[in-house]
Amino acid sequence: MFFENQRLNNDIEKVEENLRTNVTSKNQLLVKAIADTVGAGGKRLRPAMVIASSYFGKIRQDRLIKLASAIELLHTATLVHDDVLDYSPFRRNRETVYKKYGTDMAIYCGDFLYTKALLMLADIVPAKHLTIAAKAVKTICEGEVDQYRDKYVMNLSVPSYLKRISRKTAVLFGASCALGALCAKCNHSITNSLSKLGFYYGVMFQMIDDYRDYKSGDSEWGKPVFNDLSKGILTLPGIYACKNNKEIYQKVENYWRKEEKSNEELQDIISQIYSSGGMEYTENYIQRYRQKAFREIEKLPKSEARDIFADLINKLHI
Amino acid sequence: MFFENQRLNNDIEKVEENLRTNVTSKNQLLVKAIADTVGAGGKRLRPAMVIASSYFGKIRQDRLIKLASAIELLHTATLVHDDVLDYSPFRRNRETVYKKYGTDMAIYCGDFLYTKALLMLADIVPAKHLTIAAKAVKTICEGEVDQYRDKYVMNLSVPSYLKRISRKTAVLFGASCALGALCAKCNHSITNSLSKLGFYYGVMFQMIDDYRDYKSGDSEWGKPVFNDLSKGILTLPGIYACKNNKEIYQKVENYWRKEEKSNEELQDIISQIYSSGGMEYTENYIQRYRQKAFREIEKLPKSEARDIFADLINKLHI
Repeated sequence: MFFENQRLNNDIEKVEENLRTNVTSKNQLLVKAIADTVGAGGKRLRPAMVIASSYFGKIRQDRLIKLASAIELLHTATLVHDDVLDYSPFRRNRETVYKKYGTDMAIYCGDFLYTKALLMLADIVPAKHLTIAAKAVKTICEGEVDQYRDKYVMNLSVPSYLKRISRKTAVLFGASCALGALCAKCNHSITNSLSKLGFYYGVMFQMIDDYRDYKSGDSEWGKPVFNDLSKGILTLPGIYACKNNKEIYQKVENYWRKEEKSNEELQDIISQIYSSGGMEYTENYIQRYRQKAFREIEKLPKSEARDIFADLINKLHI
Repeated sequence: MFFENQRLNNDIEKVEENLRTNVTSKNQLLVKAIADTVGAGGKRLRPAMVIASSYFGKIRQDRLIKLASAIELLHTATLVHDDVLDYSPFRRNRETVYKKYGTDMAIYCGDFLYTKALLMLADIVPAKHLTIAAKAVKTICEGEVDQYRDKYVMNLSVPSYLKRISRKTAVLFGASCALGALCAKCNHSITNSLSKLGFYYGVMFQMIDDYRDYKSGDSEWGKPVFNDLSKGILTLPGIYACKNNKEIYQKVENYWRKEEKSNEELQDIISQIYSSGGMEYTENYIQRYRQKAFREIEKLPKSEARDIFADLINKLHI
């Protein structure tokens, strides 16, 4: 198991079981597509955030498992749709729904999962808190649209990058913690710290994901390498390099303009971004968000749950 | 205006205004895409169902407008995603989001609208009734997957066709009436009749849509003609003809097998389906559901609202 804490591992195991047995449909094709996606695993980080946050308060276990499962389904729905847009044949070393069943099934499968997730949430989360989940999904969509709009855009600023990854990734981590805390009836101050903590964790998580995209041959996360740059997406290392080095700027611009993109050209750009200091710049940013996260941890009451968060953050490294 | 009743027209006008002003995002590209879709009009039949149903009870007007708008957004979300799957360049004589902005934007725009709709619903509909809306969306997805699964399938039975269009179309009409009635605190018997009435209306609506697809040159609804058959979808006229005439069965099978589909072949099949009696068979089915709908109307208390439903059903013709 991924997590150090046994209580958390037990609860995550129950989430796995719930996802396996309760996400069904009368439609057999949909059942298969869902099993392929939801069953494909991943680290279940968002459910872990929900669960660990709830440990600061009190909640019936069946409700907690349902809440954590719903958040994982929301996340899975976004992945299924992302794979269509990225033409991704593989995720976590498995064929995607898009690749295996086509665009049609992937779109409906995503819609189905969104709805199933919101159904589950409506069942346990009071209406006033339900908006947190729905707003998170709305924001994720906006973040993805940002990314679409920013494609092949040079001169991307660091603040726009931060805004994009906040929307795309960090908001759902923040919402996971907020919902876990609120449903366990934590007080405002704890809920607020957990919500920020989740958000900072999400920023780090995405920065590290983007950083790893630059590390050739690193396929640990089951994704193809240099994916972002070759698809017209600038992340922190490239933004830094292009801003501080006219030659790299020019090379990226030329590379993006070409119909036929050569792998040598891409490799050359990547190695120049490395020499420019873009990787260290990114590491610095990750470190900054790690500190922000730890500052929130310190505001939380000392407890097993607090240690879980410290462990989760320590596990996030480049 | 489309509706005879002035009160209904006034309320629909408020829905239009609400859709224009309240469905926004901080993301300008998304705002444009949404305006193109939500503003593209259509007859707002589902909001009309919500509103007319609510007239049997009592509800604050702002809540009613919000509820009706949310249902229209749910419907629009499904259309935006459908257009991606059908590669539809036009709908209601306007360019689709898919055509104008591409698959990426269309998927996110749909997800955004789904979420916005569920957010609006969560704000006004009690949690126990919220599942009606979410279940409707879940069912629509299943219906679309049915259609995907049934593509190029000969020997499709009438019951599977009925199940498919129920899921794809009728359930949302039924849910519109049910939610309108429930939120206006109607009693169980009225809610039940309205819910069935909406469902039967939806079945008729889809049968007529499918029927019109067979009527060459009929572009009143802004869709290309013979779309279904050329895309491997059998609807009632074709199901009937293939079942009762081996020659037509063979021709459809051959036509679907070919890589290059000729328009002459398609025209020939269509005219054979006409001669087979497939159109009359479909008209009969539509008539049967019209009667079912009217039987539910008779169970409702005599009122202006009841007349609206009778008018809506009478307006539905081939």
